[in-house]
Amino acid sequence: MYDVTRGLQDGGTFLLNTIWEGDELVKNLPNKVKKYFADHKIKVYYINATKIAQEIGLGNRTNTILQSAFFRITAVIPVEKAVEEMKHFIVKSYGKKGEDVVNKNYAAVDRGGEYKELAIDPAWSSLPADPAKDYGDEPEFITKVVRPINGQDGDLLPVSAFKGIEDGAWPAGTAKFEKRGVSAFVPVWTADNCIECNKCAYVCPHACIRPFVLDEEELKGLNGAATREMKAPAAMKGMHFRMQVGVMDCLGCGNCVDVCPGNPKTGKALQMVPLEGQLGEAANWDYCVEHVASKQDLVDIAANVKNSQFATPLFEFSGACSGCGETPYLKLISQLVGDREIIANATGCTSIYSGSVPSTPYTKNEKGHGPAWSNSLFEDFCEYGLGMQIAHRKLRERLAALMQKGLECADCSDELKAMFKEWLENQNSAEVTNRLYEPMVAAMEKCGCDTCKAILAEKDHIVKRSQWIVGGDGASYDIGYGGLDHVIASGEDVNILVLDTEVYSNTGGQASKATPLGAIAKFAAMGKRVRKKDLGMIATTYGYVYVAQIAMGADQAQTLKAIREAEAYPGPSLIIAYAPCINHGLKAGMGHSQEEEAKAVECGYWHLWRYNPQLEAEGKNPFSLDSKEPNWDNFQAFLKGEVRFASVAKQFPKEADELFAAAQENAQWRYKSYLRMLGTAW
Amino acid sequence: MYDVTRGLQDGGTFLLNTIWEGDELVKNLPNKVKKYFADHKIKVYYINATKIAQEIGLGNRTNTILQSAFFRITAVIPVEKAVEEMKHFIVKSYGKKGEDVVNKNYAAVDRGGEYKELAIDPAWSSLPADPAKDYGDEPEFITKVVRPINGQDGDLLPVSAFKGIEDGAWPAGTAKFEKRGVSAFVPVWTADNCIECNKCAYVCPHACIRPFVLDEEELKGLNGAATREMKAPAAMKGMHFRMQVGVMDCLGCGNCVDVCPGNPKTGKALQMVPLEGQLGEAANWDYCVEHVASKQDLVDIAANVKNSQFATPLFEFSGACSGCGETPYLKLISQLVGDREIIANATGCTSIYSGSVPSTPYTKNEKGHGPAWSNSLFEDFCEYGLGMQIAHRKLRERLAALMQKGLECADCSDELKAMFKEWLENQNSAEVTNRLYEPMVAAMEKCGCDTCKAILAEKDHIVKRSQWIVGGDGASYDIGYGGLDHVIASGEDVNILVLDTEVYSNTGGQASKATPLGAIAKFAAMGKRVRKKDLGMIATTYGYVYVAQIAMGADQAQTLKAIREAEAYPGPSLIIAYAPCINHGLKAGMGHSQEEEAKAVECGYWHLWRYNPQLEAEGKNPFSLDSKEPNWDNFQAFLKGEVRFASVAKQFPKEADELFAAAQENAQWRYKSYLRMLGTAW
Repeated sequence: MYDVTRGLQDGGTFLLNTIWEGDELVKNLPNKVKKYFADHKIKVYYINATKIAQEIGLGNRTNTILQSAFFRITAVIPVEKAVEEMKHFIVKSYGKKGEDVVNKNYAAVDRGGEYKELAIDPAWSSLPADPAKDYGDEPEFITKVVRPINGQDGDLLPVSAFKGIEDGAWPAGTAKFEKRGVSAFVPVWTADNCIECNKCAYVCPHACIRPFVLDEEELKGLNGAATREMKAPAAMKGMHFRMQVGVMDCLGCGNCVDVCPGNPKTGKALQMVPLEGQLGEAANWDYCVEHVASKQDLVDIAANVKNSQFATPLFEFSGACSGCGETPYLKLISQLVGDREIIANATGCTSIYSGSVPSTPYTKNEKGHGPAWSNSLFEDFCEYGLGMQIAHRKLRERLAALMQKGLECADCSDELKAMFKEWLENQNSAEVTNRLYEPMVAAMEKCGCDTCKAILAEKDHIVKRSQWIVGGDGASYDIGYGGLDHVIASGEDVNILVLDTEVYSNTGGQASKATPLGAIAKFAAMGKRVRKKDLGMIATTYGYVYVAQIAMGADQAQTLKAIREAEAYPGPSLIIAYAPCINHGLKAGMGHSQEEEAKAVECGYWHLWRYNPQLEAEGKNPFSLDSKEPNWDNFQAFLKGEVRFASVAKQFPKEADELFAAAQENAQWRYKSYLRMLGTAW
Repeated sequence: MYDVTRGLQDGGTFLLNTIWEGDELVKNLPNKVKKYFADHKIKVYYINATKIAQEIGLGNRTNTILQSAFFRITAVIPVEKAVEEMKHFIVKSYGKKGEDVVNKNYAAVDRGGEYKELAIDPAWSSLPADPAKDYGDEPEFITKVVRPINGQDGDLLPVSAFKGIEDGAWPAGTAKFEKRGVSAFVPVWTADNCIECNKCAYVCPHACIRPFVLDEEELKGLNGAATREMKAPAAMKGMHFRMQVGVMDCLGCGNCVDVCPGNPKTGKALQMVPLEGQLGEAANWDYCVEHVASKQDLVDIAANVKNSQFATPLFEFSGACSGCGETPYLKLISQLVGDREIIANATGCTSIYSGSVPSTPYTKNEKGHGPAWSNSLFEDFCEYGLGMQIAHRKLRERLAALMQKGLECADCSDELKAMFKEWLENQNSAEVTNRLYEPMVAAMEKCGCDTCKAILAEKDHIVKRSQWIVGGDGASYDIGYGGLDHVIASGEDVNILVLDTEVYSNTGGQASKATPLGAIAKFAAMGKRVRKKDLGMIATTYGYVYVAQIAMGADQAQTLKAIREAEAYPGPSLIIAYAPCINHGLKAGMGHSQEEEAKAVECGYWHLWRYNPQLEAEGKNPFSLDSKEPNWDNFQAFLKGEVRFASVAKQFPKEADELFAAAQENAQWRYKSYLRMLGTAW
């Protein structure tokens, strides 16, 4: 993929991190590379740093091993001196994270010497060119623009490569062509143990494990891969269920395995296994994605967690970290809202993984329709989305006036007029406007009167859009909060999703007003000393804003319900979603990020609730507390399970107890404020 | 004061608006002006537009009368045409405000013809120069800088005039030298009817009616002006009480008269009378201000409304509108906090009347100490104040470290060490640090050791300051809200005062998030359609912010209590003060702005409450509702008493009823949210 020898000089030295050795390595090296080695008399070394890192317990962190190998091979400074300095800086960098982390890194330095030399065969100079890669029938844009950029050759692209997208538009769904295959371990599905709950697909941060529903015809093309005959839902009875893993897209976090309830007698339906044995699944994935039609129209996809996963995700294979707590929420929204979704995105992790050129995870459905996404700054993301919504509303007011005119038109047919009337009466119904779109457009094209022409010119606005505004806690609680407040106050029909990692994740973990008391973050190196801001409670003071606090890993159904209600609410909605992040330093690892959410709610660290102003109109309390009375006994253990808290104890042992007690007290204070909301008479 | 003939050409025409006629006018014109008229053969006309405006019922609005006179005298276009066009534009400009306003302006156009010509005596050419004005012993800065700027000659000042204040600093208390004498009517005090409640002084927007307490010696200098022998408070028993009016500083609003309870049998102690008869009071004012010592140290000035007015206001004679609802709050804070006050001011009316060069209403006490004031933008006023507070805190941490060192010092005396110790134990007590300041500084100067020298270098920070942050609703609810939120979240000890006029007052009345539903404002020309933001309730969600909502005219004691508690609270405080504004179009006039506040609370339009986190620590409900159950029957009448609402009914009669009903419903919704706060179990 990358031109790894670019810049390598005659007689230079090359170090490769690889799982192959000796002959197998030679076999796998492209001719182009081998020829370069021979032609330029390169000294080549190789090491399996990935394996070493795993053995040491450093996960996928190979940098220290490779740094050590570099110093040993080049001897730019005396090797003993290099080792000494590396160890010195390990203490400086990781000392705060505990002795265990330091020792693992020491081991990484020591084992950096386990490299081997590859003998260069002078005959490689005569090797023929490698055969051209066959990417099948992929779009020209992928071959000519996306692949060169991904191969770090973007600066070699001519201006003409961007013809047709001079305005900055970017084709949707390019991420699916990456097929990175970067995970050493991927899940494998055991059909017999599966209970078809779809929980695994629900939590997958990269949309690379999906249930497919096949009819008899589609089943034939599957080449005997395992399926289950479906008994429910009724509309799918007798069809064939397959939980398919996209092994080349998987990042190997393992949350799917973690949440799999499996069969109580025979065990989980998923387990992590080495990628090598699963490469054959790639063809099954391609078949399912390309040849198995979506059956989502057979069921109400918003009815429950299981059904939601029969909807095609329109957000897939993003560049987010393995086990990311944020992306499952975005994927779910893309499934529930589909091609009506418009997204105004803040700066932050969400903007990076949702739109780092050339990777666009937002994609299209079978009809070629999908969400539209754009990104603004930290400080104006809500205003940005408000502008989109106001433009949409204004254009629809124009459409409404035109259709009113159409009702009196001599040219328009009675059938068309009936559709205008239905639209005018149901213009804010996604269901009705979606249903009317195709027949109405066809009838107007046939009619061709001036009014119909004018409506057709704005036909993109016939279907009710769903305006989403997405940001992290840095943008929402701090930098863009003035705008967030202004937008929810406006009363406009927008849906704001706050992905709350409780720190500025993308810029390296600085404290925000979402950071809880006691946590360590940049700018709060001694542990944060003031309470976490309760953004949700603030929003409830308006009385006309739908608000929800959710944590998918704690309650998948409540998450679904909140998103469904927020989207349906004809005014501003604000959803605050708890999202574990690599910055938290989960001791259990990011493969348990969903479980960490469950723990957070169980111990009272996070709470699930919804505030629906529509209930007040019915004389009910608009506030519902969806999480149970916490088990406060587990609160301290929860804190100690995350490095962001645990390291306070390491660095400031004297103050840590006090801080952690205060953190718990604050969580309890907050919980009490929810109980008060719940207990008041409306 | 102004060079009115500058630019007037030979044979030119001059129109003067004056209360004088004929010989009396000639007598009052300066020689310089008369000479100019004669030398340059000027045609001079005069008119008493002020009197005409009063007769018509236009108050002090003379512009239309003078415009009409201008067109009649100059005949730049045919007079009939001019009259027709003026009347046309009156309908256009004031049509929305009702027929009565239109008719009054019509009358103004018609009576613009009531001017007379002044005969010019050629002998005036030989008049001698006017005698130089005697401003007494005023500071050189006033004579050389302030007066030229006020006389619109600022652009003629040399750079050297600013020597010593090159950094932008400006001497305090320049406003008192203006003595504008612009009010046609001023209050006169009837000693026999006075009950010494000091309510008049409390509400005066310009600090120009003040109670003075004289001892026998001071009484002698008063030249027989009326006083009352005091019976209370005990510490002042036997002294002499005089409510003194500063007639040359008064803007004639009449709120003092309005709030005066007077003697139930004999009537009010104040009434408005023409300025002419009261000019002699100027000398009494000067005597009281200059020669009667403040007696504020005899009582606890924060104990009650009456006592508070014995404190010298350090905010006086600002450029605010007559009857301004904002300035009485600022004046009161300057009295309660005194020279410990530091103010970070937002852009808006508050910044204009608090610091329009060359006018500085913030002034100094007898010791030459006073508040320090500075102004930043709409969008960062809270951060600006936070910076001041953090700087003060940091410098005091340095002082604390130095005093700790001083405790071990061989040079420092035991007496000085005792003071260091007392300071260290009470460094956040205004009372203790104030008391220690003078003896401690004297002892350190005597000691002269290095530690003492280092402390003396930062001696300005020995006394605990009181950090205030002042802004209007535009800054606080909208543009600067992100910062306001960030600052209250910080937990720092600052006091934020929001002067809530419910519109952007200074920029001309645009809608803010503080604008209530139903009100007309710029950008909300059809009446605002969403609910007023509840800034106070939002702030309570932090749980560690002191919050109060006040309205001086509704409850003077509650206002005092809230300011006192906010200042004492060792964390962030937020006070939201209701302030009638000329933009509201009070039908009763701004002379009843205090009464309007009372009405607002009585009918449920505004509510008084306090949220004190310290009560929660005692196991009590931190929320207290200080206003009574509203009389909702008066709500609609209240709305109709203000043009901002009444004009909706004029322009959108169909929607007005619905909007006004919704406004009331929203006020009731809000009140209910307060009742819920009150009713919850803590």
